[in-house]
Amino acid sequence: MAAGRAEARHDEANEPRSPVLRFGADRPLRLDAGITLSPFQIAYQTYGELNAARSNAILVCHALTGDQHVASRNPVTGKPGWWEVLIGPGKVIDTNRFFVICSNVVGGCLGSTGPASISPLTGRAYSLDLPVITIRDMVRAQAMLVDHFGIDQLFCVIGGSMGGMQVLEWASTYPERVFSALPIATGARHSAQNIAFHEVGRQAVMADPDWRGGTYLEHGVRPQKGLAVARMAAHVTYLSESALHRKFGRNLQNRERPTFGFDADFQIESYLRHQGMTFVDRFDANSYLYLTRSMDYFDLAADHGGRLADAFAGIKTRFCLVSFTSDWLFPTEESRSVVHALNAAGASVSFVEIETDRGHDAFLLDEPELFAAIDGFLRSAARARGVEVGP
Amino acid sequence: MAAGRAEARHDEANEPRSPVLRFGADRPLRLDAGITLSPFQIAYQTYGELNAARSNAILVCHALTGDQHVASRNPVTGKPGWWEVLIGPGKVIDTNRFFVICSNVVGGCLGSTGPASISPLTGRAYSLDLPVITIRDMVRAQAMLVDHFGIDQLFCVIGGSMGGMQVLEWASTYPERVFSALPIATGARHSAQNIAFHEVGRQAVMADPDWRGGTYLEHGVRPQKGLAVARMAAHVTYLSESALHRKFGRNLQNRERPTFGFDADFQIESYLRHQGMTFVDRFDANSYLYLTRSMDYFDLAADHGGRLADAFAGIKTRFCLVSFTSDWLFPTEESRSVVHALNAAGASVSFVEIETDRGHDAFLLDEPELFAAIDGFLRSAARARGVEVGP
Repeated sequence: MAAGRAEARHDEANEPRSPVLRFGADRPLRLDAGITLSPFQIAYQTYGELNAARSNAILVCHALTGDQHVASRNPVTGKPGWWEVLIGPGKVIDTNRFFVICSNVVGGCLGSTGPASISPLTGRAYSLDLPVITIRDMVRAQAMLVDHFGIDQLFCVIGGSMGGMQVLEWASTYPERVFSALPIATGARHSAQNIAFHEVGRQAVMADPDWRGGTYLEHGVRPQKGLAVARMAAHVTYLSESALHRKFGRNLQNRERPTFGFDADFQIESYLRHQGMTFVDRFDANSYLYLTRSMDYFDLAADHGGRLADAFAGIKTRFCLVSFTSDWLFPTEESRSVVHALNAAGASVSFVEIETDRGHDAFLLDEPELFAAIDGFLRSAARARGVEVGP
Repeated sequence: MAAGRAEARHDEANEPRSPVLRFGADRPLRLDAGITLSPFQIAYQTYGELNAARSNAILVCHALTGDQHVASRNPVTGKPGWWEVLIGPGKVIDTNRFFVICSNVVGGCLGSTGPASISPLTGRAYSLDLPVITIRDMVRAQAMLVDHFGIDQLFCVIGGSMGGMQVLEWASTYPERVFSALPIATGARHSAQNIAFHEVGRQAVMADPDWRGGTYLEHGVRPQKGLAVARMAAHVTYLSESALHRKFGRNLQNRERPTFGFDADFQIESYLRHQGMTFVDRFDANSYLYLTRSMDYFDLAADHGGRLADAFAGIKTRFCLVSFTSDWLFPTEESRSVVHALNAAGASVSFVEIETDRGHDAFLLDEPELFAAIDGFLRSAARARGVEVGP
């Protein structure tokens, strides 16, 4: 049955329903692991039109389990794009004004080269043959996509969580190419607790015998149970205690009294099981290992001699950081330390902490204060850059 | 190999290296699920001597993965008792003065009747044939043990976490039998977030094919990988972010630079894997399901018409509640709501919130402020009860 479902699933990793940019042997991707990846490809989506001055491009960086389908129907789930509440014609990020680019990260499973991609060397999926991909590797690949569009400088790079890590890396690695940067609900390094939760998820995947040491695709199976457990564990960390209490409390699921058994008596259990089950239908388990690992490895200060301010020395990019009061995965303190480093580097930076009980997930939700902050920041940046943004 | 290890392990569930009290058909245990358990047994340890007035008995209630070996070498792990820092001759709970009783909870796996016990009806382990055991069921069984010692009133009932739930249940169900009560790092109900983490752990166990729908003991296997993942996930919740940062940070494990692979690069990963591996050698997976479930079901207010104060109406027991500032599993707020309910019920209650970064686990550690609080409370209670406690 697992195999059946795996076969029935469209092979989005190798034949994505997205435009794809292929880089041949002449354009390898240099990886932080010390080797090069070649050939490789990037699957992406764009929205709106690039203006003549090529000054209106916004790069959106997706989070751990996100993808390039940021503002249009997702062909895998059939659901709206993951940030359609924010991005589209007439929306806060108005695609009538801006040219929005979003690409699947390298290491992902929606068409950019990742562990589920067929290796041209072996004719089989890479599985674990790739080294760990870093946030910087993802950003280097994105820069090649931006080059392809002939864009010297992005008007803005925006993203939340793992996407926010990419935003910080973009600004640090290519400061002249980023006019403004909007890192949301993120940090400049992954904390010990966050590494711990990721490790629990990876161990859950690897404990599933259908993982087969990573070679499950060759065997027509998928470690669905293990990946579902990983997703459930992660999902708890995306919400706040108070949001869980407000949404579910100790309410029972379609029953008057507990069953004194191991069914999903409580609504929260039923909700989590659903989250786990739907996730495995759209995500590759090895990709989950790679992308959680990329976040664990992220430590911008360590990459600059231990001093975070040195990651942004002399930078002219305008920054706006956003955190959420109830986000315990990336608490406000993590954003604040980035703000302090940017201040120490003499950068232009604003910082908004938004009061909400929705936890880390708030960045993906219809959160008026978040949208107001993004709107205000983009308008101000657009005036400074001379980009027309409308009334 | 899993089977080999399972066979090699001493069958502590059925032949515990502890005194055992057996209750025959004439003394069934009434369960909240609406059925009776009979026969059943309780494995326990005692320390010190009961005085002539039978007024110096302290019942210690253990936490989720604890056991009766509270103040002497654990025969399974070979390690000291889990609360030997607190309990023993000359210690804060001085076994030269007090008679300390600690029993394995019903549903456990160290000799009291639980899912790994052989059912006299079938000759096989109960596995999932038992209904969910509640905290009140555990307490009812403990009361039968206390009866066995001819003790009408316990001088004190003490415990942390799931043990603290039992303390609250004891005071509520048998108020005249509890002179003083010390619930630590606990609450009067399990929160949605806590249920969520428990459900992740249970799903990890159940996802392991060696779980075999709960019948693994019949097949000579154990769901070790699933149980290890469950333990790892739970363990993260026992520590605080700051303790993890202080102890591990982003330090690498025996290496200078990351491997760009999925080895335990970080110390926190190596630590968690170790926690998972050692746990499965000492604990039964089905017991883990039952005991997590007992905590999920615990809701003292709901058992009393929704008003927590009504759980303690007219109670004369002296209470001391203790919470830890960095405990996010049972935050201070949970203890405070019990304190408010006890105040509303007119009970005698003191409350100590201890500043520490050690998280929920603090209750098991050498925490001087905790010991001072316990010492002061017990001395005061002993004077009131007329129990000799020494200088």
